[in-house]
Amino acid sequence: MSIVTLLTDFGWADGYVGVMKGVILSIAPHTTLVDISHDVAPQDVRDAAYVLYTAVPYFPPDTVHLVVVDPGVGSARRAIAVRTAQGTFVAPDNGVLSYVLAANPPQVAVSLTNPQYHLSQVSRTFHGRDIFAPAAAHLSRGVPITALGEPIRNLVTFPMPKAQARADGTLIGQVIHVDRFGNAITNLRRGDIPWSDEATVVEIGEQVITGLKETYAQARTGEPLALIGSSGHLEIAIAGGNAAQRLNVYIGDEVRVRQKSDGDRNDAYRG
Amino acid sequence: MSIVTLLTDFGWADGYVGVMKGVILSIAPHTTLVDISHDVAPQDVRDAAYVLYTAVPYFPPDTVHLVVVDPGVGSARRAIAVRTAQGTFVAPDNGVLSYVLAANPPQVAVSLTNPQYHLSQVSRTFHGRDIFAPAAAHLSRGVPITALGEPIRNLVTFPMPKAQARADGTLIGQVIHVDRFGNAITNLRRGDIPWSDEATVVEIGEQVITGLKETYAQARTGEPLALIGSSGHLEIAIAGGNAAQRLNVYIGDEVRVRQKSDGDRNDAYRG
Amino acid sequence: MSIVTLLTDFGWADGYVGVMKGVILSIAPHTTLVDISHDVAPQDVRDAAYVLYTAVPYFPPDTVHLVVVDPGVGSARRAIAVRTAQGTFVAPDNGVLSYVLAANPPQVAVSLTNPQYHLSQVSRTFHGRDIFAPAAAHLSRGVPITALGEPIRNLVTFPMPKAQARADGTLIGQVIHVDRFGNAITNLRRGDIPWSDEATVVEIGEQVITGLKETYAQARTGEPLALIGSSGHLEIAIAGGNAAQRLNVYIGDEVRVRQKSDGDRNDAYRG
Repeated sequence: MSIVTLLTDFGWADGYVGVMKGVILSIAPHTTLVDISHDVAPQDVRDAAYVLYTAVPYFPPDTVHLVVVDPGVGSARRAIAVRTAQGTFVAPDNGVLSYVLAANPPQVAVSLTNPQYHLSQVSRTFHGRDIFAPAAAHLSRGVPITALGEPIRNLVTFPMPKAQARADGTLIGQVIHVDRFGNAITNLRRGDIPWSDEATVVEIGEQVITGLKETYAQARTGEPLALIGSSGHLEIAIAGGNAAQRLNVYIGDEVRVRQKSDGDRNDAYRG
Repeated sequence: MSIVTLLTDFGWADGYVGVMKGVILSIAPHTTLVDISHDVAPQDVRDAAYVLYTAVPYFPPDTVHLVVVDPGVGSARRAIAVRTAQGTFVAPDNGVLSYVLAANPPQVAVSLTNPQYHLSQVSRTFHGRDIFAPAAAHLSRGVPITALGEPIRNLVTFPMPKAQARADGTLIGQVIHVDRFGNAITNLRRGDIPWSDEATVVEIGEQVITGLKETYAQARTGEPLALIGSSGHLEIAIAGGNAAQRLNVYIGDEVRVRQKSDGDRNDAYRG
Repeated sequence: MSIVTLLTDFGWADGYVGVMKGVILSIAPHTTLVDISHDVAPQDVRDAAYVLYTAVPYFPPDTVHLVVVDPGVGSARRAIAVRTAQGTFVAPDNGVLSYVLAANPPQVAVSLTNPQYHLSQVSRTFHGRDIFAPAAAHLSRGVPITALGEPIRNLVTFPMPKAQARADGTLIGQVIHVDRFGNAITNLRRGDIPWSDEATVVEIGEQVITGLKETYAQARTGEPLALIGSSGHLEIAIAGGNAAQRLNVYIGDEVRVRQKSDGDRNDAYRG
């Protein structure tokens, strides 16, 4: 009996998450349930894709990850299960698995078309309860993925936004997640940046940050800083503060990374 | 050892839920704990009654449901346990079990008066910790419900608001829950509505919605729609949006449902 | 295999809590995980210390409590594990264990310096995942605390604010926690107050409350009241309302407690 994780945009107030857990435990009573997040912004498939991608490496490979961020519920979008070397995923086929599948290629993918593994009554508006949760539970108790429906190819995916390089060498990235602390996490990884920590300048909006720090605590309280965060991505933070609020940063905002030049002060701070 | 679910208005910030779980696991270490919701609006007994009612059918019948929305804690209101064919409930006797007991008649009900099954010190302000959680734990480990206290009758209940019919045939219902997505769920069920999906008109405030959809995705993004939701109740939604915010809808608001007439456009939309 | 509780300021939106659980279950698959709170105000070590202190007495003594409120992550602050008669604690050495250790003296304390019990890659910004969660998991599966690192003394602690007495006998306390219901909980305990419930007057800001109640329900709806709450501390509440919002109370605000005099009305209410 494996772990089943849950990642949704359902919030906690309505009991929708509890209902899915009731369905899972009715089918697979000894499953260990773990919540990844239920507070993904409503219907924000890309943000859910990022959160999933940061969490999956820390679970055992026999884990079943149930992901229900599903603005197209009841439409023609498929319900799928996908097995990889790093875990098995149950989700709508809307791209929410994009980042995790880019890192862990699909071994088998099926469309959840076998009604034997659905609840006996399937609503048109809550497939999390009626199709996805039962599929995760049956996988957890050992039903082979191929029993759940027909094999499929050509999953819906979108790429993680790629770093762009300008003619002058400046890298253009973007904010892909803002966390609870207001840290703005970008699509840029350390390997994308050809300069040393000291020689790197990060710009977001009007803010210019000179040098990459190693920890939040290396900056003075209230000072904007840039560092490579725990997911391996460049992030902009404020020591003891909330960078997203203070610098007015949102998902999708542009970040410019360039080599330090003579015109840059050390630790430039216009906050 | 059964599942124990928890449904409260305690929120997550204060550790109150964690404390109740510590109490339960101290008494019944192998219990599987499942959170239904802890974000019911503070002291909103009716909203909790609705959330419980939608969740219970999806849990095994030997589940113990612990419900602590208890504005009258420490007053004369009784603490009760109630067994039904669909689960056993531990709650204050304030009506929070109303909807679930209307669907699942009580087989046995007791007042939690036996101090042997309370914590050794009982506060006047946190019976969730001192009386309700221990009762749920003892039930989970097999203590008979009748050991917990004296049998009682005449539980406090309130009816689910009933649909009213006007002389002209218009049905008058009301909003009984607004969910995380802003969907406004009403007391009206499909069986209350005598017209076909196409011939049904739903009005809320100034908004007129012609026809019932089957899924959110059938409407254009931003378009108000009405459908029978996953709990079997009529709900008003906005495709890709938040109906409660956009249409300014609150719990208790009136909803009018009538037959389509010549004056109605198709998919009328004044949003 | 013991219970591992988690108390953080990570919120639920980012998956950070789920990641820590993945790490724990990868090391100690049969651990029972219990969330105390993840909604402590970001980086508020004192508030976390209070929430922990109220929860610990209700868990079995073989529980491992994992506490990650860690504004100094990556700085010189130590990562520690501390065993007491009431549980074992894994946390940054920043005072977050202060209140719980004042009630339960340390038996053994170590610095988590043994890399064998860290994840193989340790980031500079997420020790919750890379150091604290693995330590809690190894303790849960029976690794002796002394294997995790060198014994230490002189833990960082801060005292719970003490009641001060003025020359006229008035006790000066302060608000140490505001809960979800808006109840303002103070550092004063019943034993600090030398007067009977009836003869005690509590003042906060401009509000004067005469007498201590036993339950919220003893006051009229909307009426400010004072009582000894479920943690044994004096708190200020409003029956059916939110005292912190209505009376504009914050953590750290002064509370004055004195003997009733002839000038006090009964149940004075200027709300």
